[in-house]
Amino acid sequence: MKVGLAQINSTVGDFPANAKRIIAAYREALDEGAELVLVPEMALVGYPPRDLVFKSGFVDKCLQALDYLKGEIGDVPLVVGYVDHNGNNGPGKPFRNAAAFLVGGEIKSKVFKTLLPTYDIFDERRYFEPSDQCQPVEWGGYRIGITICEDIWTEDFLHRPLYKRDPINELKEKGADLILNLSASPYHVGKGGVRRELLGELAKKTELPLVYCNSVGANDQLIFDGGSLVMSSDGLPCEEMASFAEQIKVVEILPESASRSAVRSEGKSLHPDEEVFRALVLGVRDYIHKCGFETACIGLSGGIDSALTAAVAVEAIGAENVMGITMPSPYSSGGSVDDSLSLATNLGIRCETVPIAESFEAVRGALAPLFGDLPEDVTEENMQARIRGLYLMSLSNKFNHLLLTTGNKSELAVGYCTIYGDMCGGLAVISDLPKTRVFSVARWLNRDREIIPWNTIQKPPSAELRPDQKDEDTLPAYEILDEILELYVEKQLSSEEIIEIHGFEEKTVLWVQRQVDLNEWKRHQAAPGLRVTSKAFGIGRRIPIVQKFGR
Amino acid sequence: MKVGLAQINSTVGDFPANAKRIIAAYREALDEGAELVLVPEMALVGYPPRDLVFKSGFVDKCLQALDYLKGEIGDVPLVVGYVDHNGNNGPGKPFRNAAAFLVGGEIKSKVFKTLLPTYDIFDERRYFEPSDQCQPVEWGGYRIGITICEDIWTEDFLHRPLYKRDPINELKEKGADLILNLSASPYHVGKGGVRRELLGELAKKTELPLVYCNSVGANDQLIFDGGSLVMSSDGLPCEEMASFAEQIKVVEILPESASRSAVRSEGKSLHPDEEVFRALVLGVRDYIHKCGFETACIGLSGGIDSALTAAVAVEAIGAENVMGITMPSPYSSGGSVDDSLSLATNLGIRCETVPIAESFEAVRGALAPLFGDLPEDVTEENMQARIRGLYLMSLSNKFNHLLLTTGNKSELAVGYCTIYGDMCGGLAVISDLPKTRVFSVARWLNRDREIIPWNTIQKPPSAELRPDQKDEDTLPAYEILDEILELYVEKQLSSEEIIEIHGFEEKTVLWVQRQVDLNEWKRHQAAPGLRVTSKAFGIGRRIPIVQKFGR
Repeated sequence: MKVGLAQINSTVGDFPANAKRIIAAYREALDEGAELVLVPEMALVGYPPRDLVFKSGFVDKCLQALDYLKGEIGDVPLVVGYVDHNGNNGPGKPFRNAAAFLVGGEIKSKVFKTLLPTYDIFDERRYFEPSDQCQPVEWGGYRIGITICEDIWTEDFLHRPLYKRDPINELKEKGADLILNLSASPYHVGKGGVRRELLGELAKKTELPLVYCNSVGANDQLIFDGGSLVMSSDGLPCEEMASFAEQIKVVEILPESASRSAVRSEGKSLHPDEEVFRALVLGVRDYIHKCGFETACIGLSGGIDSALTAAVAVEAIGAENVMGITMPSPYSSGGSVDDSLSLATNLGIRCETVPIAESFEAVRGALAPLFGDLPEDVTEENMQARIRGLYLMSLSNKFNHLLLTTGNKSELAVGYCTIYGDMCGGLAVISDLPKTRVFSVARWLNRDREIIPWNTIQKPPSAELRPDQKDEDTLPAYEILDEILELYVEKQLSSEEIIEIHGFEEKTVLWVQRQVDLNEWKRHQAAPGLRVTSKAFGIGRRIPIVQKFGR
Repeated sequence: MKVGLAQINSTVGDFPANAKRIIAAYREALDEGAELVLVPEMALVGYPPRDLVFKSGFVDKCLQALDYLKGEIGDVPLVVGYVDHNGNNGPGKPFRNAAAFLVGGEIKSKVFKTLLPTYDIFDERRYFEPSDQCQPVEWGGYRIGITICEDIWTEDFLHRPLYKRDPINELKEKGADLILNLSASPYHVGKGGVRRELLGELAKKTELPLVYCNSVGANDQLIFDGGSLVMSSDGLPCEEMASFAEQIKVVEILPESASRSAVRSEGKSLHPDEEVFRALVLGVRDYIHKCGFETACIGLSGGIDSALTAAVAVEAIGAENVMGITMPSPYSSGGSVDDSLSLATNLGIRCETVPIAESFEAVRGALAPLFGDLPEDVTEENMQARIRGLYLMSLSNKFNHLLLTTGNKSELAVGYCTIYGDMCGGLAVISDLPKTRVFSVARWLNRDREIIPWNTIQKPPSAELRPDQKDEDTLPAYEILDEILELYVEKQLSSEEIIEIHGFEEKTVLWVQRQVDLNEWKRHQAAPGLRVTSKAFGIGRRIPIVQKFGR
């Protein structure tokens, strides 16, 4: 059988556009000879719709779109992900994460997701009732096992098995001779390898060919990387599709002769820095365009964070749509403005200079009667950052640029950033990149020619909010900080474990832990940030602000 | 049997302090003759701990605290809520929402929560594995059915039955002659009545007495109102405890003679405006004190929102700890400063005046080369709000006041507020109060004497960001707006339903819907707001920013 995989980019709640995209992809696959076409999980809806599913009419509008779709489907079936009502009269959640098997203008079968992820960024038990039983769909002489995303993730990826059921086993027992999987599986660094291994082992274990169609595109924090796969029944990839781009491909599945089908192409892993860069580009492009913006602005400090953010933005929406603003203060080094201007030249973007000295003096003057002769402190540092935020938001308001915020994960973790200052913006582009990763992506970006000025990469990082300030006056060296943060934030180890097992200095670990805990309130008010690690700040990490554990 | 109910206020993750508070309450109940003592759900942990449970050592520290507790318990048992590991070797979530029956220095029994709410603000399937079976605990000749919060909410409160199991039935079938319930049931307006009705019907249906011990206090957005109840087996309240305050009470349960026990006191419902005011006071006090602050500052505009916020703060932490700042602009009416000063006098708080004109001019001057001769627009309005936010944050930084933000639910819903401007602050005190409720609470507050200046209540609301501006130039009348918002945001109706069934004007409804949808990004970055309705913005409402449904 020739299966068409349509790895497409859906927008949440845009039923008419998603339906049209699906039809176009279906026809393209037909032209290439497909005998069955597969689109990703919730392709008709966009994933994740979150609480939109509770809105009156949401699911009905989805079903209307499904009705329209089925009318467009002829003898070649389409398997499409959507959201359905839970028609059961029994108790349970009101909806189903569903796939419809459409053929000949009809819905031949509906299949519901069995395993509902409810961890990290996933909330599926909030909405959906799981399938009661898994049953292959018979068509064209095949018994086709249709699964949705998590249904195949039954291995021990989360330290302990999470689920009592195993849809693949159930389907195999009922005679499935082919497994399809519709996914909307979000990206993080290295996910492609994990996925390839999982699917390979699953195909080998079941001795069934496996067709995995993943979503591509970004919705809010989440980036879907595509990389759809076809595995032969001996667990070798027959086909691996593009990362970070739409693609439609028809692949011949030969279940009766596994060995012949093997290794048509080997998955080519990108370098992690390139992978992250391309993920961010997709995330920025989709956020800006799906929100209806065309242009973006960025505050350029001369430092590496804003430089990398600008480079991503240029790749995403074009240099002509990106505007840089440099806002020197009396504490800015001469190099800062120069480095920003060099960056702008390298990227081919417009850059304007708006000094903050007079506004800073006016604000200080207004508050002087209240501050009296109290010494300067972090107040005046934040003031400068907030005046810059005010300038940037004014430009965003006046010219309808989306303001991109430039903070990295390390500084957001320890609160080395000013809320309502440099945290201003609609999207946090690199907020899931530790500072050391920011450096390595910047170096990768400069592999052929200087894009990010070498001076920006080589000079010691500084907030430049007081004379001769350096990040490392306040923070541990980034190599140390990032390792501790990975253990504390991503792996969720205790400070005792980080000190005793991993051998970091007690004083440093306790300082980092305290800063992370104390700054939860700032992150609560942070812009959504693109997720590129397995544990990002944002919807996948839900820590109370008011709490005393470990404080 | 004499049951002691300890309606106490726990702090999330503060095991030592929570354990001490439990022991003190236990001893107090003993002194009053209790033969068994009950504390709320997760009293040892604080509810909700959210993703803190994933932190290495969190559950172990909880179990250490439980170990300490059991050593303090003699012949009179303590039933205490805590979090446990899922000791099962089978698949499932790693933790249990648990209650321990402690007596004679031992853990006699452990009981696990069966029904795990995963909707609105609740995420329990993210963490916990449900109990496999419900079994009464035998003690002192009784078979005591121990349940945890949701376990008794099996009625059709959410449009359809959610759960397949019914713990109360299971316990009744196994011979329970008394039901205990440990709760951490968050407040919203009218919750007391719902709870009284539910518990009354449940007691009547099962013909069992019911002892319901609820948490009190606030953690982040959530306010727990207490109001613990004892129901006789004929469904009449024998005892109803305080709202919004800790209380320890010993109540005699007479299961063998239901009729004799009835109606020792009838639950006295507060007026909704008083109820909301007291809820907010508790929410503000706990947020400020549990975060380690002592003082707060508030921007006073002369309007009703900041006035009510200040009144709540004064009641919560004392007038001497609240500072008001009025920040007139060239567009401010004379009345604004006067009304703020009258309010400050009425409340007995300090109020300082810091004009914004010069800072506003400096910022405009700096941006003039970029703005050229473009007309003034919302940019300049936001600029003023952001300069005020900058002043307020500077005061917060310099003097370590927590800045309270003053926006109401109506303006937050339609985005009639400036992000990084009047949205600045650590806690949004009235962000779940529609404007019409703000007015009614203010009037209630003034029932005996003027606290909020009558002029503030009577003048038409205005942002005063351009000459002669009034809210109703931009917004529908608040009576209309608030009704539409309740239908659209809280009841999640479609615009078609609001127009066709409820008869609102199409143009107005579509405008409101569009504003609510377009401003999701602002609310994403809003301060946590105290929840007082059944559907607040924040953790209980999860709408994507990038989405096109209904746009």
